[in-house]
Amino acid sequence: MNSFGRIFRVHIFGESHGESVGIVIDGCPAGLSLSEEDLLTDLERRKGGKQKGTTPRQEADYPFFKSGLFNGKTTGAPIMILFENNNTRSEDYNKQRSIPRPGHADWVAHQKYGGQEDYRGGGHFSARLTTGLVAAGAIAKKLMQGITIRAAVTEIGGEADLEKGLQKAIDAKDSVGGLVECRVNGLPVGLGEPFFDSVESQIAHIAFAIPAVKGIEFGTGFAAANMFGSQHNDAIENMDGKTRTNHAGGVVGGISNGNELVFRIAIKPTASTPKEQNSLNWETGQAENFSVKGRHDLCVALRAPVILEAATAVTLLDFLLLEQQIKRVVS
Amino acid sequence: MNSFGRIFRVHIFGESHGESVGIVIDGCPAGLSLSEEDLLTDLERRKGGKQKGTTPRQEADYPFFKSGLFNGKTTGAPIMILFENNNTRSEDYNKQRSIPRPGHADWVAHQKYGGQEDYRGGGHFSARLTTGLVAAGAIAKKLMQGITIRAAVTEIGGEADLEKGLQKAIDAKDSVGGLVECRVNGLPVGLGEPFFDSVESQIAHIAFAIPAVKGIEFGTGFAAANMFGSQHNDAIENMDGKTRTNHAGGVVGGISNGNELVFRIAIKPTASTPKEQNSLNWETGQAENFSVKGRHDLCVALRAPVILEAATAVTLLDFLLLEQQIKRVVS
Amino acid sequence: MNSFGRIFRVHIFGESHGESVGIVIDGCPAGLSLSEEDLLTDLERRKGGKQKGTTPRQEADYPFFKSGLFNGKTTGAPIMILFENNNTRSEDYNKQRSIPRPGHADWVAHQKYGGQEDYRGGGHFSARLTTGLVAAGAIAKKLMQGITIRAAVTEIGGEADLEKGLQKAIDAKDSVGGLVECRVNGLPVGLGEPFFDSVESQIAHIAFAIPAVKGIEFGTGFAAANMFGSQHNDAIENMDGKTRTNHAGGVVGGISNGNELVFRIAIKPTASTPKEQNSLNWETGQAENFSVKGRHDLCVALRAPVILEAATAVTLLDFLLLEQQIKRVVS
Amino acid sequence: MNSFGRIFRVHIFGESHGESVGIVIDGCPAGLSLSEEDLLTDLERRKGGKQKGTTPRQEADYPFFKSGLFNGKTTGAPIMILFENNNTRSEDYNKQRSIPRPGHADWVAHQKYGGQEDYRGGGHFSARLTTGLVAAGAIAKKLMQGITIRAAVTEIGGEADLEKGLQKAIDAKDSVGGLVECRVNGLPVGLGEPFFDSVESQIAHIAFAIPAVKGIEFGTGFAAANMFGSQHNDAIENMDGKTRTNHAGGVVGGISNGNELVFRIAIKPTASTPKEQNSLNWETGQAENFSVKGRHDLCVALRAPVILEAATAVTLLDFLLLEQQIKRVVS
Repeated sequence: MNSFGRIFRVHIFGESHGESVGIVIDGCPAGLSLSEEDLLTDLERRKGGKQKGTTPRQEADYPFFKSGLFNGKTTGAPIMILFENNNTRSEDYNKQRSIPRPGHADWVAHQKYGGQEDYRGGGHFSARLTTGLVAAGAIAKKLMQGITIRAAVTEIGGEADLEKGLQKAIDAKDSVGGLVECRVNGLPVGLGEPFFDSVESQIAHIAFAIPAVKGIEFGTGFAAANMFGSQHNDAIENMDGKTRTNHAGGVVGGISNGNELVFRIAIKPTASTPKEQNSLNWETGQAENFSVKGRHDLCVALRAPVILEAATAVTLLDFLLLEQQIKRVVS
Repeated sequence: MNSFGRIFRVHIFGESHGESVGIVIDGCPAGLSLSEEDLLTDLERRKGGKQKGTTPRQEADYPFFKSGLFNGKTTGAPIMILFENNNTRSEDYNKQRSIPRPGHADWVAHQKYGGQEDYRGGGHFSARLTTGLVAAGAIAKKLMQGITIRAAVTEIGGEADLEKGLQKAIDAKDSVGGLVECRVNGLPVGLGEPFFDSVESQIAHIAFAIPAVKGIEFGTGFAAANMFGSQHNDAIENMDGKTRTNHAGGVVGGISNGNELVFRIAIKPTASTPKEQNSLNWETGQAENFSVKGRHDLCVALRAPVILEAATAVTLLDFLLLEQQIKRVVS
Repeated sequence: MNSFGRIFRVHIFGESHGESVGIVIDGCPAGLSLSEEDLLTDLERRKGGKQKGTTPRQEADYPFFKSGLFNGKTTGAPIMILFENNNTRSEDYNKQRSIPRPGHADWVAHQKYGGQEDYRGGGHFSARLTTGLVAAGAIAKKLMQGITIRAAVTEIGGEADLEKGLQKAIDAKDSVGGLVECRVNGLPVGLGEPFFDSVESQIAHIAFAIPAVKGIEFGTGFAAANMFGSQHNDAIENMDGKTRTNHAGGVVGGISNGNELVFRIAIKPTASTPKEQNSLNWETGQAENFSVKGRHDLCVALRAPVILEAATAVTLLDFLLLEQQIKRVVS
Repeated sequence: MNSFGRIFRVHIFGESHGESVGIVIDGCPAGLSLSEEDLLTDLERRKGGKQKGTTPRQEADYPFFKSGLFNGKTTGAPIMILFENNNTRSEDYNKQRSIPRPGHADWVAHQKYGGQEDYRGGGHFSARLTTGLVAAGAIAKKLMQGITIRAAVTEIGGEADLEKGLQKAIDAKDSVGGLVECRVNGLPVGLGEPFFDSVESQIAHIAFAIPAVKGIEFGTGFAAANMFGSQHNDAIENMDGKTRTNHAGGVVGGISNGNELVFRIAIKPTASTPKEQNSLNWETGQAENFSVKGRHDLCVALRAPVILEAATAVTLLDFLLLEQQIKRVVS
């Protein structure tokens, strides 16, 4: 469903090549000073249009507040933010309607919605939908004073030297995957709700809503499977719960322990590779070679950090409100 | 929260050393033949008491149906299953109340619940809580005819030879982590709900509710971050959506694509290692060396497969009901 | 919260004198032919601008589809409908900011949101918010083929002759309340979910979201309290469940029984009466006489039928989808 | 669904003549002193076995805490309370399986669950299910210090003199309906969440889950439909929001205004009347006269006050937690 959250709730809508994308944010505390300006930095980071390896398609991505603000502050009523789509070339997609692009949702969407899906540019499955999420994240971050959320690409195509990883893709005339790491500082102890709503559960839930994410791990993550208990256990060393090591990544028993929250996501290579590919034409029943047209990122991981920060912020703010660590009216 | 699911909903309760653990299953289709017998195989697998490396604590784990069955069939009303706790040695825990065990929820629970938590054996944070989930999973599996869910340990302590991995731990007098892989066959195309409820999102959500899970990946997962798009993309080769490769692990755009669903979880080493450890006594404010008493698994990953199957079954059944692929009255 | 529904979910936003009001509809089946035209009749009924006793404020109330439609059909993705506010006279409200209008939400909103509420014309508490609900209702009705939902005013100011009731108010220079009855035909047996989600529970829930509703009753309702069991019980007389009488109003045990669903709501007189009133100026702490300015309905009950139909349609459609009586892809 | 609440959540299970009924309470604040004793007064009131006009069936109704308590206090983990059914005469029901009792859920349950329902004594539709709700209500009340919730029967069979109303039924050898009024004092201003979760919406939702409820009204309720605005509006007269009159019943714009919360429910006559009735035998397709056997209340309204108090307490506590007026750890 297109909703996430229990107290701070977001509802996403829109399509890549429809009229607009956007988000409704319900349950946002009243009294927060807020303007379009507050969102622009993160929205700009999401566009990534100036980076090597990101798509030259540049939506203006200007956030129009349509409700929920009054006199420059949030009112406690739902905030609706609308982004217009005004830089689309739908004809690129119409031509290849019956050839589902490998790695994209074309075929599953067609099956699921009985052929009624808006297929242009991935429609509702497009990464463009994350625009609204980034806006919500910027608001959530502003509400979480004293808490910092920072995500960054740590690897591209297996290379910690990102330029090198990207160059590999350019040389291969192919797209490439990457890793993004997120670190959160300043979280209180006690976020997370047993049994099903551990911090890891909720963050993983929303992280896998981000297109192209195929894995997530907390702290030492998959490496923990190779460790002994005496190595992995983090010994508490002061009354704030500070631990000597942080193999747990800040979450024990599903609950934040006051240490840095650390997790990583794996992002698959952009499905739209410049390379020629093969797929099945569902009208003819024949396999066909084809090339993806349109403008695409060589490495979507480059745009992922700000989206992951937003997803994290939205999730943690919800926990903070639930745990009554943030008030429903701020001042 | 202790609830999961939208149509098929489970509500978990209980503590490790309290009177009982159990589960309420709401939204289960009416008309399913069901008895305690149907649950025993999976419950036995969860206990794992006969395996090298698992705890000698052996609850009877007999499932008492307290509601929801009539004449040997489900009625459509909530099914409550109760497990009595009758093999507990709480005194083991009372002694070390003020020394939070590293890697356990002791300290976070104490902070979150203001010192009111049932600390004995981890209380509500204990892996014993998964008993109810395994029962629900057995019911879910029985409802999903034609769909098979199989999980297995694929590595212990970094060794694909499981005996060898376990022996490493025994030799080191330490606990050890592992990997568990789950494969689901027979799923229809079209499960998963954009934007936030992708198949990956929901499975990851519940997987991270399982104690000790620290990572999850679908298909090639983290390895996808090193691949080119032309390598990772799975070409569709027939009208059922069968793909030549399955790097996506059966999910594209968050939606099941009819291929085998494949994912892996990373399980950290059992927090209760036989090795002496160091922690902070929160009454004295002093660090102390101590040893974990009680009976514990050397490698909890050994018990995880049936729990992961259950979590997966519960999640997929919910999707199937939502997608109207399973009826609310079966016959 | 501003969301309602489990499968067919609506999310409302906006303020009376802000930039817009609107709704996001998530979970709408794909494949429904839909255009602005389909909504205009009901939106026009809601405006009620031509009726004696309704406000002369006439928004254009044109529904802009911002997402979820493609080639004239629903796609299965969220439908966002936006209504612009372009006929507001906010200055009417600014003057009396500190004098909460009796019967309005002014004072409670001020307390709840710490003075941050948009107070103009009731802000988010305005009946203007029902515009989106009416739009969603028109869509829901279109999906429910063979089911008819009809609501009508049955009394104004205690008079079954509506003209007479209205004239009473005009003569008294006062506003007046009324009763609205809703009848639904064609419902299948079996809607409603024990224990908490009876048909009555859900309909009452959403009915009390409509501004000014202060009571609801099903079938003979309050009169049932005076009846004997032998009188009130409806005897089943054929295999379709048709009953001889319908004192239950089509719902037994919280579940639809296949007979006509009948219920009534009580609507209080419009809070904005033309009469002079007395309230407390919260800045001076002094009582003051004042008159409500602005344009208002003498009897809001006149506009309620189409809103109640919409609320009912949205609720019943959700039950139908949950009970799998309507498919998630229509054709 | 068998769940209610957002922060304080209850999950009901059980059948009238099955093994047990009960409730899981999730989200209960930690640190509340609690024992079986705290529940007995309200559970005794629900049984009503000593009152003229209530059923002689007397379950012991002893609440067994199966989880969530430790050292006499709530822990923050789910509280499961089990009631055994040990005084049932199922054979009474078996005989008339194919003759649905008018006014009962027999026929709708049979249709909805494909004949798989537990039909004995109404099964999951029985008023016996309210036992768990009453237990949850007693806990909720204990948490709401300074807030009093009192419900009472105000009319039986149209008579304010309750003895007289009951005698009418006894004389007529019939069952009879009644009215129950609930008054809550001490509520803070600001409970209720626009647009859909008004105080009235949530209370009406849960009130209609109580068997036999057919109407609800707040404040002057249905009488408001006959009033002028200048009469109905409650003028605020001090800075606490105290109003001169209380026609609104303590809720304006769906939000509590700090005045007494007042509402009434209409309860239909007990469906199981001693009088001979007529129904359709669904096996023969023939109408039949029959008499209801078993032990039943002449007037279920007599047992309703404590149930309505519980429903109200559960609902208001949830609002208080949501509004952060009650802490998640009490002391």
